[in-house]
Amino acid sequence: MSVIQQIQAQLGDLDAWLVPHEDAYLGEYLPAANERLAFVSGFTGSAGVALVTRDALHVWVDGRYTVQVKTQVPAGTQVHHLHESPIADFFAQLPQGSRVGFDSYCVSARQLRLWREGAPGVEFVHGPNLVDACWPSRPALPSAKGFALPTSLTGKTCQQKRQDLVRGFAPKADVALIAQPDSMAWLTNLRGADVPCLPVLLMRGLLAADGQLKMFVDQERLPAEAELGEGVEVLAPAQLAAELTALNGKKVLVDEALTPAYLVDALKAAGATLVLGADPALVPKAAKNAVEITAMSEAHLRDGVAVSQFLCWLDAIVAQGQRPDEAALAEQLEGYRKAQADYLEPSFDTISAAGANAALPHYNFRNGAPATLPQNGLYLVDSGGQYRLGTTDVTRTVAIGEISDEQRRLYTLVLKGHIALSRALFVKGTCGHQLDALARSPLWAQGYDYDHGTGHGVGQCLSVHEGPQRIGKAANNHPLLPGMVLSNEPGYYREGAFGIRIENLVVVQERQAPGDRSVLGFADLTFIPMDKRLVDKALLSADELAWWNQYHGQVLAKIGPRVTGHTLDWLKAACAPL
Amino acid sequence: MSVIQQIQAQLGDLDAWLVPHEDAYLGEYLPAANERLAFVSGFTGSAGVALVTRDALHVWVDGRYTVQVKTQVPAGTQVHHLHESPIADFFAQLPQGSRVGFDSYCVSARQLRLWREGAPGVEFVHGPNLVDACWPSRPALPSAKGFALPTSLTGKTCQQKRQDLVRGFAPKADVALIAQPDSMAWLTNLRGADVPCLPVLLMRGLLAADGQLKMFVDQERLPAEAELGEGVEVLAPAQLAAELTALNGKKVLVDEALTPAYLVDALKAAGATLVLGADPALVPKAAKNAVEITAMSEAHLRDGVAVSQFLCWLDAIVAQGQRPDEAALAEQLEGYRKAQADYLEPSFDTISAAGANAALPHYNFRNGAPATLPQNGLYLVDSGGQYRLGTTDVTRTVAIGEISDEQRRLYTLVLKGHIALSRALFVKGTCGHQLDALARSPLWAQGYDYDHGTGHGVGQCLSVHEGPQRIGKAANNHPLLPGMVLSNEPGYYREGAFGIRIENLVVVQERQAPGDRSVLGFADLTFIPMDKRLVDKALLSADELAWWNQYHGQVLAKIGPRVTGHTLDWLKAACAPL
Repeated sequence: MSVIQQIQAQLGDLDAWLVPHEDAYLGEYLPAANERLAFVSGFTGSAGVALVTRDALHVWVDGRYTVQVKTQVPAGTQVHHLHESPIADFFAQLPQGSRVGFDSYCVSARQLRLWREGAPGVEFVHGPNLVDACWPSRPALPSAKGFALPTSLTGKTCQQKRQDLVRGFAPKADVALIAQPDSMAWLTNLRGADVPCLPVLLMRGLLAADGQLKMFVDQERLPAEAELGEGVEVLAPAQLAAELTALNGKKVLVDEALTPAYLVDALKAAGATLVLGADPALVPKAAKNAVEITAMSEAHLRDGVAVSQFLCWLDAIVAQGQRPDEAALAEQLEGYRKAQADYLEPSFDTISAAGANAALPHYNFRNGAPATLPQNGLYLVDSGGQYRLGTTDVTRTVAIGEISDEQRRLYTLVLKGHIALSRALFVKGTCGHQLDALARSPLWAQGYDYDHGTGHGVGQCLSVHEGPQRIGKAANNHPLLPGMVLSNEPGYYREGAFGIRIENLVVVQERQAPGDRSVLGFADLTFIPMDKRLVDKALLSADELAWWNQYHGQVLAKIGPRVTGHTLDWLKAACAPL
Repeated sequence: MSVIQQIQAQLGDLDAWLVPHEDAYLGEYLPAANERLAFVSGFTGSAGVALVTRDALHVWVDGRYTVQVKTQVPAGTQVHHLHESPIADFFAQLPQGSRVGFDSYCVSARQLRLWREGAPGVEFVHGPNLVDACWPSRPALPSAKGFALPTSLTGKTCQQKRQDLVRGFAPKADVALIAQPDSMAWLTNLRGADVPCLPVLLMRGLLAADGQLKMFVDQERLPAEAELGEGVEVLAPAQLAAELTALNGKKVLVDEALTPAYLVDALKAAGATLVLGADPALVPKAAKNAVEITAMSEAHLRDGVAVSQFLCWLDAIVAQGQRPDEAALAEQLEGYRKAQADYLEPSFDTISAAGANAALPHYNFRNGAPATLPQNGLYLVDSGGQYRLGTTDVTRTVAIGEISDEQRRLYTLVLKGHIALSRALFVKGTCGHQLDALARSPLWAQGYDYDHGTGHGVGQCLSVHEGPQRIGKAANNHPLLPGMVLSNEPGYYREGAFGIRIENLVVVQERQAPGDRSVLGFADLTFIPMDKRLVDKALLSADELAWWNQYHGQVLAKIGPRVTGHTLDWLKAACAPL
């Protein structure tokens, strides 16, 4: 009997069972034990949802995965588009009185509320996870010890951070439920290896308005060097339920979008008063202090060495006529990163994309047979590392053999947008949606655009996709604050032909100005040469040309002393003024 | 007994009576008969709300009116800030079970819903308007005949427009309730003079999915030349209630933000199914057709003649040493406009602001003693006209005597922002919040900003503040469409010193581009010289200088043939290349 059939056999009075990609921590990356969507459907993408009905398997995936999913799911599976025909519409069309079973640990309270509002005729019934019951070979949950970051990398102790957070929510709330592992990692200065690409221990916490913290994680997983300070109690994860029950009559701050429905329901049942608001760690974690930025900067210099070594090697082997495949290239790049001190792992699945594959902004060579580099064309590599000091994320587009004037023109338009955002100055209070057009304007003027955001937040040895700030077309009402790290990554994609993206990480900094408002700007964290063979210098203004030369002067000054031999020669040539 | 006391005497089992500025048409401008807020409180501003409680009068006004209100309301009135301590907060703090009486014709369904959600312990009780009961000398409601715009100005007949609108909402809804007079004016090609500054007849309509229209307006108010086409029924306003009751079982499209709560409640009581969505006329009215744009353009040329005559006259009398006051200047300007064919009235209260008064972006010289022009300094005049052909709105800042280098520098920064927005090219689908930063960037880079939007929509012989499009910091998710008219009005304000604003109206146009997306840009509608004495040419780039010279070349070419004598000489000098 297949897994689907086993689940169907257990439906009882339910009409369907929901299998989200997310686990109880609602994140993008999961431990193997919680890859329930992959176990049930075969689909291994990083986002999606399945629904096992009495007679079918339905799977929803986004545009990145529409080809891949069909090669992975069982014959007869009904595949839907996650955004164009969302599961909410499917729920809304179910017969009145339909019962959909789900594990309310694996759905955010906000998501559940929206589904319920959109499908008032459907009953969503929480119950023990049917998938786990059909999964005898389920891998063990992570149990390895975590590690602590010293104050020399974090700038603040756990105790200081707790005091800071409390000022943000007391007396509005008596206690804050911190449901996200990366918020807890930041708050406790602890890291782990529970999930790939995100160095956290899977844990939650309850932070009281007096600064006392209850952490829900097995005591033996904490490293000896952990410095949590006074007033921290470590409790087993299973004790969370009892602790929530004890919050009767208390005002509890809950981030509805980041908290499992199960926990919110438990608080309601306990008689707590919910205070809906953002996770209190969200903004302090995003707006990094000077010590965190210094550590992030050093991580980027090490990353700059590794990526420069890779780009130097790539030019050399291409000149020799070699054309490796995308997998070999990603492996070579990872090898250089592994040689750097304090490197832990990739910060996301490397996008190593040759020729037409790069026209898919989120291409993953692992989803099919990796392509080899073209004789003549473009290679796009978007990759990053988790270092103990910080998280990196960089995209470079590289000329392989001869490239066309049109490719050069489009690379230069993308570059102009990248430069415009890099040079932007803006007053305090400005949000990301206000700056997005700066990166797109040079493309827009010629009738081009790209269908992804321009910048996402990045954590310190935490998530490479960190909120709340974001630069994109859609409104984001979180002002950019000094110390926030963002990507600057405009691009251009021509289906079936090629893809271009230029990505640096930048940090928001205060700037001097004569006026009556505080001014902010961006400073680069990434120092890695861009490919001058792709630049049409005639399209650059004097200011843009000066930016290019100044940036590459900095790259040489910062990375040059850390490399030798061929790499140094290559770096000098790559950084020579245009 | 004062009006307040009379209202208090009639409260009965109510704890308070609400007096919004708005009447049943929910607009900014009102007929004298509906100036209830002014009648009750003495406050004559264009926005605000009062609450008569058992023992006090509370009045809420926005930042424009905080000084003025205190000179107008009775002693002992409690004044609140409309946005900083909103009436919703006041409701939320009332004792559980409080009963607030109101006329649900004068509050939108959306506003009422938000108040109720924010103050679940308060009962909002609709009843006959207590103010009207205490107002024996209440002026008569408007009864004058309207007038029709010919198809040569509107481009489409009422019948064609009805067919267009129906395609936008059928079969989603069986009928659309059109509650806004300006939407009805656009749909029927009728105009009127029921309220100042907005040339409409106060009327509503029910548009059925088969294109049949029921108009609620007294038949004798329609002009003989009205061409409404087949399938239009004219009913007295009082018949609307019965017509809503007849919609039992029908799906009715309602714009919750633009429709009085009374009408929405009546539809619910009738057993209609509400389909919440935007007024179907909103987007077609905003995205003007080629005939409408041609008429708008001609209105702007006539307006350009009038304002140029005024600016020429102003320079001459200032040179003679005269320094008239703000009221005399506004009157002089209005005189030139009145001499233009098809001129009806101002499109809003003229902002004629000398020296420090211009630091208030919404200054109104009628709210106190008008100031005289300074010997040396800046004069800001923001004004517009309603012409049968279209609506204008323009701001010019003028040098009076000697001005400082700093004023010149700041004017030039504002100008650079104006030019950047004017020259912007963007792909179809772009919304106003994405372009706002273009107009602010030159100011931001120096630490300056302005606390108002950059661009609002403008109607054709309709509202000078027309939605749904808008250029500002806040998200506006209505893409800019060809034919939409917007203002481009960056500024700078120094409290107690001076104010600068440069405003043209522009229309969205399609542009040619080599890329794979459709490109849009702005074309100026306003052709009036800007003041070259305020420009620091050294701060302009070559492109910006070219824009200035090209724009003023167009001004001379378009306005020159329409003026003579001194004005022509002045225009030639004002438009000579920088």
